[in-house]
Amino acid sequence: MNKMQLKNMLDDVAAGKITSDEAIMKMKTEPYENLGFAKVDHHRSVRQGAAEVIYGECKTGEQILKIICSMLNNGEKSVLVTRLNEDKANYLKEKINIKYDSVSKTAVAGETEIKAAHGKIVVVTGGTSDIPVAEEAALTAEFYGNKVLRIYDVGVAGIHRLFDNAGDLADAKVIVAVAGMEGALASVVGGMVDCPVIAVPTSVGYGANFKGLSALLSMLNSCASGVSVVNIDNGFGAGYIASMINKI
Amino acid sequence: MNKMQLKNMLDDVAAGKITSDEAIMKMKTEPYENLGFAKVDHHRSVRQGAAEVIYGECKTGEQILKIICSMLNNGEKSVLVTRLNEDKANYLKEKINIKYDSVSKTAVAGETEIKAAHGKIVVVTGGTSDIPVAEEAALTAEFYGNKVLRIYDVGVAGIHRLFDNAGDLADAKVIVAVAGMEGALASVVGGMVDCPVIAVPTSVGYGANFKGLSALLSMLNSCASGVSVVNIDNGFGAGYIASMINKI
Amino acid sequence: MNKMQLKNMLDDVAAGKITSDEAIMKMKTEPYENLGFAKVDHHRSVRQGAAEVIYGECKTGEQILKIICSMLNNGEKSVLVTRLNEDKANYLKEKINIKYDSVSKTAVAGETEIKAAHGKIVVVTGGTSDIPVAEEAALTAEFYGNKVLRIYDVGVAGIHRLFDNAGDLADAKVIVAVAGMEGALASVVGGMVDCPVIAVPTSVGYGANFKGLSALLSMLNSCASGVSVVNIDNGFGAGYIASMINKI
Amino acid sequence: MNKMQLKNMLDDVAAGKITSDEAIMKMKTEPYENLGFAKVDHHRSVRQGAAEVIYGECKTGEQILKIICSMLNNGEKSVLVTRLNEDKANYLKEKINIKYDSVSKTAVAGETEIKAAHGKIVVVTGGTSDIPVAEEAALTAEFYGNKVLRIYDVGVAGIHRLFDNAGDLADAKVIVAVAGMEGALASVVGGMVDCPVIAVPTSVGYGANFKGLSALLSMLNSCASGVSVVNIDNGFGAGYIASMINKI
Amino acid sequence: MNKMQLKNMLDDVAAGKITSDEAIMKMKTEPYENLGFAKVDHHRSVRQGAAEVIYGECKTGEQILKIICSMLNNGEKSVLVTRLNEDKANYLKEKINIKYDSVSKTAVAGETEIKAAHGKIVVVTGGTSDIPVAEEAALTAEFYGNKVLRIYDVGVAGIHRLFDNAGDLADAKVIVAVAGMEGALASVVGGMVDCPVIAVPTSVGYGANFKGLSALLSMLNSCASGVSVVNIDNGFGAGYIASMINKI
Amino acid sequence: MNKMQLKNMLDDVAAGKITSDEAIMKMKTEPYENLGFAKVDHHRSVRQGAAEVIYGECKTGEQILKIICSMLNNGEKSVLVTRLNEDKANYLKEKINIKYDSVSKTAVAGETEIKAAHGKIVVVTGGTSDIPVAEEAALTAEFYGNKVLRIYDVGVAGIHRLFDNAGDLADAKVIVAVAGMEGALASVVGGMVDCPVIAVPTSVGYGANFKGLSALLSMLNSCASGVSVVNIDNGFGAGYIASMINKI
Amino acid sequence: MNKMQLKNMLDDVAAGKITSDEAIMKMKTEPYENLGFAKVDHHRSVRQGAAEVIYGECKTGEQILKIICSMLNNGEKSVLVTRLNEDKANYLKEKINIKYDSVSKTAVAGETEIKAAHGKIVVVTGGTSDIPVAEEAALTAEFYGNKVLRIYDVGVAGIHRLFDNAGDLADAKVIVAVAGMEGALASVVGGMVDCPVIAVPTSVGYGANFKGLSALLSMLNSCASGVSVVNIDNGFGAGYIASMINKI
Amino acid sequence: MNKMQLKNMLDDVAAGKITSDEAIMKMKTEPYENLGFAKVDHHRSVRQGAAEVIYGECKTGEQILKIICSMLNNGEKSVLVTRLNEDKANYLKEKINIKYDSVSKTAVAGETEIKAAHGKIVVVTGGTSDIPVAEEAALTAEFYGNKVLRIYDVGVAGIHRLFDNAGDLADAKVIVAVAGMEGALASVVGGMVDCPVIAVPTSVGYGANFKGLSALLSMLNSCASGVSVVNIDNGFGAGYIASMINKI
Repeated sequence: MNKMQLKNMLDDVAAGKITSDEAIMKMKTEPYENLGFAKVDHHRSVRQGAAEVIYGECKTGEQILKIICSMLNNGEKSVLVTRLNEDKANYLKEKINIKYDSVSKTAVAGETEIKAAHGKIVVVTGGTSDIPVAEEAALTAEFYGNKVLRIYDVGVAGIHRLFDNAGDLADAKVIVAVAGMEGALASVVGGMVDCPVIAVPTSVGYGANFKGLSALLSMLNSCASGVSVVNIDNGFGAGYIASMINKI
Repeated sequence: MNKMQLKNMLDDVAAGKITSDEAIMKMKTEPYENLGFAKVDHHRSVRQGAAEVIYGECKTGEQILKIICSMLNNGEKSVLVTRLNEDKANYLKEKINIKYDSVSKTAVAGETEIKAAHGKIVVVTGGTSDIPVAEEAALTAEFYGNKVLRIYDVGVAGIHRLFDNAGDLADAKVIVAVAGMEGALASVVGGMVDCPVIAVPTSVGYGANFKGLSALLSMLNSCASGVSVVNIDNGFGAGYIASMINKI
Repeated sequence: MNKMQLKNMLDDVAAGKITSDEAIMKMKTEPYENLGFAKVDHHRSVRQGAAEVIYGECKTGEQILKIICSMLNNGEKSVLVTRLNEDKANYLKEKINIKYDSVSKTAVAGETEIKAAHGKIVVVTGGTSDIPVAEEAALTAEFYGNKVLRIYDVGVAGIHRLFDNAGDLADAKVIVAVAGMEGALASVVGGMVDCPVIAVPTSVGYGANFKGLSALLSMLNSCASGVSVVNIDNGFGAGYIASMINKI
Repeated sequence: MNKMQLKNMLDDVAAGKITSDEAIMKMKTEPYENLGFAKVDHHRSVRQGAAEVIYGECKTGEQILKIICSMLNNGEKSVLVTRLNEDKANYLKEKINIKYDSVSKTAVAGETEIKAAHGKIVVVTGGTSDIPVAEEAALTAEFYGNKVLRIYDVGVAGIHRLFDNAGDLADAKVIVAVAGMEGALASVVGGMVDCPVIAVPTSVGYGANFKGLSALLSMLNSCASGVSVVNIDNGFGAGYIASMINKI
Repeated sequence: MNKMQLKNMLDDVAAGKITSDEAIMKMKTEPYENLGFAKVDHHRSVRQGAAEVIYGECKTGEQILKIICSMLNNGEKSVLVTRLNEDKANYLKEKINIKYDSVSKTAVAGETEIKAAHGKIVVVTGGTSDIPVAEEAALTAEFYGNKVLRIYDVGVAGIHRLFDNAGDLADAKVIVAVAGMEGALASVVGGMVDCPVIAVPTSVGYGANFKGLSALLSMLNSCASGVSVVNIDNGFGAGYIASMINKI
Repeated sequence: MNKMQLKNMLDDVAAGKITSDEAIMKMKTEPYENLGFAKVDHHRSVRQGAAEVIYGECKTGEQILKIICSMLNNGEKSVLVTRLNEDKANYLKEKINIKYDSVSKTAVAGETEIKAAHGKIVVVTGGTSDIPVAEEAALTAEFYGNKVLRIYDVGVAGIHRLFDNAGDLADAKVIVAVAGMEGALASVVGGMVDCPVIAVPTSVGYGANFKGLSALLSMLNSCASGVSVVNIDNGFGAGYIASMINKI
Repeated sequence: MNKMQLKNMLDDVAAGKITSDEAIMKMKTEPYENLGFAKVDHHRSVRQGAAEVIYGECKTGEQILKIICSMLNNGEKSVLVTRLNEDKANYLKEKINIKYDSVSKTAVAGETEIKAAHGKIVVVTGGTSDIPVAEEAALTAEFYGNKVLRIYDVGVAGIHRLFDNAGDLADAKVIVAVAGMEGALASVVGGMVDCPVIAVPTSVGYGANFKGLSALLSMLNSCASGVSVVNIDNGFGAGYIASMINKI
Repeated sequence: MNKMQLKNMLDDVAAGKITSDEAIMKMKTEPYENLGFAKVDHHRSVRQGAAEVIYGECKTGEQILKIICSMLNNGEKSVLVTRLNEDKANYLKEKINIKYDSVSKTAVAGETEIKAAHGKIVVVTGGTSDIPVAEEAALTAEFYGNKVLRIYDVGVAGIHRLFDNAGDLADAKVIVAVAGMEGALASVVGGMVDCPVIAVPTSVGYGANFKGLSALLSMLNSCASGVSVVNIDNGFGAGYIASMINKI
């Protein structure tokens, strides 16, 4: 609630249009619905321009269903669920209409066909094992109405595969670079283009990879200047930020 | 060099306008100048939309001077130097016209007055000790022609100081959040706005801060969705990315 | 055994009321009962004002049962068991009367209804996934006779949810703040109130969370002054300390 | 600002006693003074029951002086400065009356004699090298009006030195345990008493101490139940929390 | 093979008692038997005064059986196997006579009753969860002919349990101190006695324990002087070293 | 594609032998085949002198089969698959002819009998548990046509076992040293020979081994000069590099 | 104070030989002298068989002098000071008679010539840079009356230098192995002998040595069975333990 | 000393050509000279094909001088000294003829002009700050008689600078890749060539670089197959290994 909105409400109080009790109630009840186990933030699409997304990892199928229904009942057209395993997805499918993607473990409820109204986001990966994280990013960006171009398995060990796609990279408004192991892809892509690169380290690898630490540190230390980083395996976050930037 | 440019040049070769040797020479010599100790990348302003910036930390005053001159002689109007200590700054001042900021340790050579042509970037800090890093970000963004609003010392321990500035935060096109210690500022700001937040962990703190590790991990694990992260103390990187995003 | 108690016993020896052998025996046998696999500390409720609690993680149902019985037989009215999985709980239920909570994995044996005689402890969480740890804290505090108010899912990404509860926070005598991911909740709460805040980092999260390390470091580096920290996921410890403070 | 205060102000707006603009202005200007480089939080003594303390590490003598004056001019009777080196202390001494302690590097400005109105806080250390951190805690607690008993150099390698002080430990309302190296002191003290123990790991030690990490982890994993932990070398934080608890 | 033995063999060569080829063969074949998957070191009981012990973790039951037989056939009277799970133990039981201990996961083959010929080794633990590691140490020491006294569950949170056993500790020739969590037991014991203390950190604990790291660092930084440390959970190593020392 | 090849192709364009579109197409399509889920790099045997190897860990049996077929159809005589578990190996066996090794989890498809044309590579291990990683190295080297001598279980705790093989070590052209735990084998071997030693740390061990970290750091800090290191458990990498060196 | 001593004193109380107040006073005052900044533990030579040693690192010359005098006045014949820099040593030399060793930074006060009454301790180092730590160990052992043999610069990169000394190693009753970098020396020595090996990792090295971490982990994971470890650079601790073992 | 040499010497003993004492003496004295503070390994050029190199970091100028003289007097023609600061270099210059390079801090004594007899080693760096480490590698390789081509400042942020040198890279027999920050250079180079790449992580960078850890992990996790790694900043080691490989 920014200053302008606060002033308007206070003016309404001063003008006797609403009482101070009503004002307090409004500030208290408006932004979210209390489901007991969770407080669903309906105000967020106003405040942040995007509805709250459901992180499915630690929630039961029943809990996810309730949150979806609460959101759809409060005006959301579509709801995105991430980190949704097959069992919970099957549970939801029996109850409501969802579109589930088993690679990225994401689902969309409500209106599942979303129009791609905004310019091009490119999602690149170093290897094939990075694809689930990349798909989480890509589907998230598509959920928010962006066109997405996927360029997968173009890691730096065979760098000509990347350069073949230089034209598409140059046309991107924002790029999501997904890579595990040494994570060099983000730096190389960052040096080739003049748009922001969101780097997603993945936990792909073994040994001195330390579950994604090597790629994470590598991307944070990128010698290319336009690269910022999200958490290991955080495809959703990268897709969300890419969408934010793409809509500016 | 994208596919279109490659095709044009190959067509020129096919048409006999240039020889294959000339084509190779062109690909080889155009992008940078070899100063012996460094290869200055003049092609970068074409490729990335921004000239290479000089990282002054490990270079001598003499080396920095040579690179500045090479860049100005090759068409750059202004050159930014970061991590420039006072001694090297004084050396440069004796030789050429620079505008030096001792807080952020940055300097601009060439045309030092840059027109702010683009919308608002907001730079916020948690404490006063984060200001040098924040200024590196702010001055970098200004160097690239952006309007910058500074909101400093608004950390979460006295969160009303932050909320007083909610209106300015809401108006921002992109926000740079600079914080050390627990780095919570990025998450709180990220939850208040609908624009991208570039988080810069700083090494401010002591003990279990482990030279910025606590703020870094905190920001990477932000529960707010629009936050991406750069290296510890990397004010330049944040300012650069914010500028990229702001110009989209 | 403090100096006063030591002096009394020595006086008894001097007065011939007890022999030196009896005194040694008393010092040796009084404080605990040796069950072979464990030494149950019956003296602790005298020394520390609270009976030893049973940490159920690595003990078998049989061992836990024996320790409960030893404690109840030595004057304890109620016994708290933490980290008790469903199988062991079911085993105990068949043998004795217990009150088991499957969310926090805690049980109370003996008298299970405990009177809340002391002022208000508030337990807050950042997300819904932090609730099991929070419940361990809340039930521990209730076990020791404290009134507990739960305010869950009020993390900093939607900080208005937290501020709606500012009144309750201000009324607390001590607050337990439970959060995973970036753990910013502790700092924000710490800056809002003038009572001690016990911060509990949780292992909720993934990637650069490193199993709770990010929240732990974040809370240790809190820029708010009244925050102290316990081990990752240590809900019991936080509830115990909160109870100690609340009773001062 | 809690709900009651908000309601009163909104009632004043509704009653025409103040305009909505005045209400906004009041919320905006009251809590702190903007010195340019810092926002001094005068509202804090109302909100948190204690004035903001000045962390002197990264501030110049001039900046510290300005903040002190701003605080004294706004109603604070005394101001505490921590991490103040001798040079800055000498600078302040030339300008205003301060009481400086060179062991703990703390100073008090304004009224330097503070009445000890509250019960006993005990500060214990493992070794002599931990004394500077312990003094920071002790002087902070005294600054806030608490009686402090110091018991230094009673580490577990000669544990009879600690037990000699068992009576004083048993009388404490809250204990601050300061130790480096293996940090075992906190666990042993925690097992002896029934009051809260605030553990302060110090960076005293070498090698596998890793600048305080060993003591920090040791204290976080304490097998005694009443121990909570603050940052490495954070004597101020421990003294502040101990004071908070002591005043309940 | 020390210099004296080398000289004797060379003298035999010079005297024509053995040929140089025989000498080489002797140096090559004597010390071990090559089973293909392992080289069994029969020379070790000569060189080190103790037969090689079988670490069962990564070996199959079949492999362990072959090594046992090889060792018994080459003059060993008894063979110790550590980290032997129940399945492999059952496999061995069907084939040969072994004495298996399911707590410590160790077995003895060959002569299973070993005479305790040497003075007292004391094994102490902080908690009940440390017992499996402690038993590995105790049984190893008994395997090598030492008398062992077990004092379990005497951790520092109830330190009077430890002091009740001060007499037994004072009588020990060497002590093995086994503890997880904060590992303070080693320091406290080390400060009470004048014999060597072998400290064994265990992985018992959770969270900031980091799988034994906290106890390990704690023990390495012990402020008591007679403490040396072995790997996390390495009960065998501690028992072996204690036996070495006890026999000096 | 090096400068010479580029020049030749450009000359062909200039001479009208191929059009610029054909040149672009050639650069684009030649190096790899796009299977959708992966881009198979057929150009690699030209560029790097060795065909791409299939890392089987995260791929399905179906995907591996398709890649094998693509490679065999494009001129490869043999294909190596690493990290192939038994299930996937059985799947492949049903479809095509492969030679599978269950210890190292590697398979060869196509021509499975490869001629050993190059001089001697020696693979040594510290213990028996290191053998799977060593076999991955040995079979990789044999796949690329090298003679391999295996010397296993010669760790430094019984160093005479290593010295018995000094002659074979001295004859090696390159040595692969595979060891877990303290990884000392690499340094000792490195000090005995005048050929390059490729060190492979393994994750064999427990506790302070931290999943191979101890052996990794040990090998990186080797005081012997000819030792370079690959990732933990990376037998393939070591065998590949050894082959590269052996063929120089 | 063991049980026997406790019984005697209690009998004295019962017999009226001493009052209970005197008994308490005796328990309180006997063991140490309170110098204000330190509590000197005069009881330690009784309890632990060795006087307290002064760790000079964080103490002033004046403090060290006072402690030495307190110890000499209370019956110690000689006092050892470790980590004593040249400045403090010079200060002491002006006041009292000390024997200072500038390599190990140790000094002996009181009687400086100590008779070597006990059998052989061998101190070995990997390189020349490890000598200061080794000398701290050697001089400590000599201070406690042991014969010490030094074998320096025999690291595993030239392992024949070590084997030349196999005879002396075989004669040792206990060995102190001091090494930095990869710390392999401890394992190799441990495999050659049948006496206890105290391993001292040193901080000698750079890069992935991480200030001694590599040698520390290496030694903790030693595949030789008789090796226990002390803190990085803790020569004193190793010498002290070696002396303890040697005197058994 | 390999088996063949051992057999010959034993035959000489058997034949009475040398006595067994002489044989022992020969094994003992031949390989090194004992200078008291160091054992100079003259046998190494026989055993390893290269003389021992002097690591100057922790040695005094006097010690270095003595070792140089010992080596030159024992048949070495040239001696390499690394990590030699300017002060020590100046000291040496006054005494003997050396050729000192102040960038890499290396010196050559004895014959300073060494013939480049072997094929091409290429040394590449990511940035200008990596040059000192690269020069240490290059000069080491030249010291051992190799031709070296330097290609500096060709990091992946401007990857066309690297590709311009593809021809030279393709011609190399072995490549040393030196890079700090994210260390991506090694992977990119490794994917372009079919010769071994020795990767040297440098400590160049700041923040999440953690003194070279990011580049180190990155290089260990390289997705290109021919890359092995040495310690952070270990230019000497890389140059030495490259020389070993180049001479095969």
